[in-house]
Amino acid sequence: MEDSKLEAMRHSCEHVLTMAMLRIWGGKIKAAMGPATDEGFYFDFDSDMKISEDDFGKIKKEMFKIIKEDLPIIKDEMTVKEAREFFNTNIYKDNEYKYEWLDQIELRGEKVSVYWMGEKGKNIPETFVDICSGPHLDSTGKIGAFKLLKIAGAYWHGDEKNKMLTRIYGTAFETKEELDEYLYMIEEAKKRDHRKLGKELDLFTFSELVGSGLPLFTPKGTLLRELLREYSEQLRTDVGYQKVWVPHITKKELYETSGHWAKFGSELFLVKSQETSDEMVMKPMNCPHHQQIYASQPRSYRDLPIKYMETTTIYRDEKAGELLGLSRVRSITQDDSHTFCRPDQIEEVYNTLIKIVKEFYSTIGMPLKARLSYRDPKTPEKYLGESELWDKAESIILDIAKKNNLNYYEVPGEAAFYGPKIDFMAVDALGREWQVATPQLDFVQPKRFGLTYTDSDGQEKTPVMIHFALMGSIERFLSVYIEHTAGNFPVWLSPVQVHFVPVSEKHIDGALVISAEFKKLGIRVGIDTADETVGKKIRTAVKSKVPYIIVVGDKELAGGDLMIRMRGLENQEEISKEKFIDKILEQVKNKR
Amino acid sequence: MEDSKLEAMRHSCEHVLTMAMLRIWGGKIKAAMGPATDEGFYFDFDSDMKISEDDFGKIKKEMFKIIKEDLPIIKDEMTVKEAREFFNTNIYKDNEYKYEWLDQIELRGEKVSVYWMGEKGKNIPETFVDICSGPHLDSTGKIGAFKLLKIAGAYWHGDEKNKMLTRIYGTAFETKEELDEYLYMIEEAKKRDHRKLGKELDLFTFSELVGSGLPLFTPKGTLLRELLREYSEQLRTDVGYQKVWVPHITKKELYETSGHWAKFGSELFLVKSQETSDEMVMKPMNCPHHQQIYASQPRSYRDLPIKYMETTTIYRDEKAGELLGLSRVRSITQDDSHTFCRPDQIEEVYNTLIKIVKEFYSTIGMPLKARLSYRDPKTPEKYLGESELWDKAESIILDIAKKNNLNYYEVPGEAAFYGPKIDFMAVDALGREWQVATPQLDFVQPKRFGLTYTDSDGQEKTPVMIHFALMGSIERFLSVYIEHTAGNFPVWLSPVQVHFVPVSEKHIDGALVISAEFKKLGIRVGIDTADETVGKKIRTAVKSKVPYIIVVGDKELAGGDLMIRMRGLENQEEISKEKFIDKILEQVKNKR
Repeated sequence: MEDSKLEAMRHSCEHVLTMAMLRIWGGKIKAAMGPATDEGFYFDFDSDMKISEDDFGKIKKEMFKIIKEDLPIIKDEMTVKEAREFFNTNIYKDNEYKYEWLDQIELRGEKVSVYWMGEKGKNIPETFVDICSGPHLDSTGKIGAFKLLKIAGAYWHGDEKNKMLTRIYGTAFETKEELDEYLYMIEEAKKRDHRKLGKELDLFTFSELVGSGLPLFTPKGTLLRELLREYSEQLRTDVGYQKVWVPHITKKELYETSGHWAKFGSELFLVKSQETSDEMVMKPMNCPHHQQIYASQPRSYRDLPIKYMETTTIYRDEKAGELLGLSRVRSITQDDSHTFCRPDQIEEVYNTLIKIVKEFYSTIGMPLKARLSYRDPKTPEKYLGESELWDKAESIILDIAKKNNLNYYEVPGEAAFYGPKIDFMAVDALGREWQVATPQLDFVQPKRFGLTYTDSDGQEKTPVMIHFALMGSIERFLSVYIEHTAGNFPVWLSPVQVHFVPVSEKHIDGALVISAEFKKLGIRVGIDTADETVGKKIRTAVKSKVPYIIVVGDKELAGGDLMIRMRGLENQEEISKEKFIDKILEQVKNKR
Repeated sequence: MEDSKLEAMRHSCEHVLTMAMLRIWGGKIKAAMGPATDEGFYFDFDSDMKISEDDFGKIKKEMFKIIKEDLPIIKDEMTVKEAREFFNTNIYKDNEYKYEWLDQIELRGEKVSVYWMGEKGKNIPETFVDICSGPHLDSTGKIGAFKLLKIAGAYWHGDEKNKMLTRIYGTAFETKEELDEYLYMIEEAKKRDHRKLGKELDLFTFSELVGSGLPLFTPKGTLLRELLREYSEQLRTDVGYQKVWVPHITKKELYETSGHWAKFGSELFLVKSQETSDEMVMKPMNCPHHQQIYASQPRSYRDLPIKYMETTTIYRDEKAGELLGLSRVRSITQDDSHTFCRPDQIEEVYNTLIKIVKEFYSTIGMPLKARLSYRDPKTPEKYLGESELWDKAESIILDIAKKNNLNYYEVPGEAAFYGPKIDFMAVDALGREWQVATPQLDFVQPKRFGLTYTDSDGQEKTPVMIHFALMGSIERFLSVYIEHTAGNFPVWLSPVQVHFVPVSEKHIDGALVISAEFKKLGIRVGIDTADETVGKKIRTAVKSKVPYIIVVGDKELAGGDLMIRMRGLENQEEISKEKFIDKILEQVKNKR
């Protein structure tokens, strides 16, 4: 189904919801407003009555009735005066929210667009009308499958100084199958919520004393971060990137020179020295620092491309209300890289980076799309640098996308202020798309910092800079990856790879000896020495989502084969210790 | 020679210097003050005359004369009144510095201790007298070998609001041999200055735009940091430490709880959020953050010891004037660890840490001494926690030092405010001692943060925390290590291990093929493709202190043995490529 048709259906379904509630409760509720959304629709109302999810049955029954009545949905127009007079005769008589809409429309000097549902000119219960610019379906009978989801509070206009209204959320799809799939996805997304799994799997924690948006990673979560970091760094080392190191703070002058201060000055954490008069900030990106390293030596065309990388944390002063688990944090660790090259090397550098992106996300198991993010030609003032350079940069990027057979689409207005970029979007197990790796072409900053190299003709020229992060932010990547895998990490990334469960106290020492053998080979092991039943210990291990569980009893201690419980599988596998160890080492080697 | 005797000699030598100058220039200079120091002595004076190092010859001649005169040095006492009257009759008549001393002594209600050099009661040129509490030698003839070193400006009382005086530095030793050795050491230290080598070897850089005390590490310097970090982490991983990760900022409340705020509040970088009202700081240490991770789960006696480690950067707001290369920086990267254990596990944890310290510094090639840093019993208010806990902690540390056969000495007053520590001091190639690794016992902080574990008896108890960093600050360690090795890093740490020098243009491709073979095996290679003579290219490589240089000409490309130029050796070694590769890999493996 097309997006616009789905939007019309959801919008109409929201009108059906409103009409149904007005039929049931009449003047006891005041309908405020309700739009269609990407996920469905919602409807806000004001009432002294308590309406809860327990009333959903009653409401749905009335909604089904309205749909069955197949009322026509008719677009109409009135003057503000006509609308005021008409509303005064019907259910909106004392509804200040509707009159506020009318006042707004009057201020804009517009006519009032309304939609009728049922016979024009009549009133509840036969007919419903609302101020609305649409779009809508032709009639209520064309609404497919719908569901009311939940009730929550919401301030009028989202402003906490206004009255708290009640909001009913719902969604609608063309078919029951699509609706069911959506509901399954919501349910699955809830189960996979990285905040919930982060706690259950003991990956990270927050502390009131440290502050919101500042996660602390436990040993298990840190292992995950570190293994991903090492992989990202290895891929880049293999194609010539060299690590550098910069501090997390800097004098403000650095960003005044780069141009970031004018754009993002108000989003930065300011750092105050008590000992000196330095005006400092926490770095919100690494490019200006890396350019200072480039600038520390004279460079020749022979030295290029110079490829720096660093996995380092930047800080952005997000509003407290926008912080969310690892998805939106104030301490953001980037697996960042900056390449300084000659114009004739751009394509080669991009090809290398695209190769790495493909390899990383193939290993990770997420398909990729590529968004080519151009500048918005309507707002050139938002971007630094000459128009000509931008045209050139955008055409280079398009050309590279084509040559590399990327699954790409072009979007104006998504560029960084200093250059266009390829935003790779990874698709997760629930079909959601996430922006991840982003090679960005930058002709602007190297000029501002006065970077140069001596070309083969003896001339001093400005290098091109290419920004690149593979995961982007490790925190945000982890939030996506934890939900993508539902915490069932592949063996190479599992904090504990093999978990040993001794049958009883007398098997503990023996189990420790076996687990030590695994550990010595670099396999990450756990062992449960608690005084519990085997059943309970296995259930605990299953909940921890460890890939392999081995119960150690008399047979195993006598040197028999091991019985392996594999995550997600009913049947156990009997295998010799040696073969099992080889299997794990092979999986780790191949990042499985 | 004992330290106290050396101090007396240097003090007397400083008086001889003053007397010599007064003999030469009389009332044209005002003698202000001059002490003995660890390195020698200095003397500050005020004069309108220009006295420079060119005058050293004349001054030394007069000093030798005074030493030859073998004047007796006699301690004496006067009342302040007597001293004022006496000074008014001699060379100090208009010397405001001496009268300021007398005023100070008067305020303290003390008598004036003076030293005569020559006949008591007389005046320059036969006799010299100065306010001084000693100690001194018996006579000027007992002064051994001395040398005047340099002249510099110095504010009176070190306060820039006061007048700038002139300072002459000198030193003295019992014998000419000791003096020569000292002078050689100074010269050698200058050559090894890590700031100079850091630039020459392209290890790190500073940027005006980033700010002072904030080094940026280039690829070569970063490699050095990273290899040391990995080694430090590996040693700790092997004994059960697990990496954690924390952000660099925190709400101030964290340090109010830990007790750091009250002690160090004014030395911290304050962080201002523009979006929220959070009062934040940059972390000046990691222990409180790590304790928040400990506190994120209930802990059992069975879980202990819990061993966290993290290589992370802390920030301290040093005064601009105190910053010095990598020795004193504002961004300090610690290879930090925190162990939470039961009291009965303290000794075992310490033994493990001491084992690691011994292994690391033995690899690094620096002998160790251990300073046991206790609290100063005279200022108990400087320390947190009950006296009884301190006594216990100090006796535990002493016991551990004995059992581990440490080369130890005890120093009161050097403890951290929360507990005593073992400060390991590494001795460098010039015999200088540097504080490096520091296991610290802490009974206080876990209590303040309310940390607990459930003991085997079911009771909630407070764990003991042991702080530990192996290198301490990586930046400071590097400053020491660069000077210790004079930049001649062992093969495993050399940023470039083998440097190839093609004889001419036509040998470049072949040299690239050979170097690629080395690179493939993980050996770090460099190749000089510049259009220069072989001689010049070799000289450049020698200056870069690379361990091995290989010239590639016709013979080498024909598959012949390689001629290896080894750093610091005159003779070259002829060896097959395979054997040479094995040799390097063996050196890297053994950290040589």
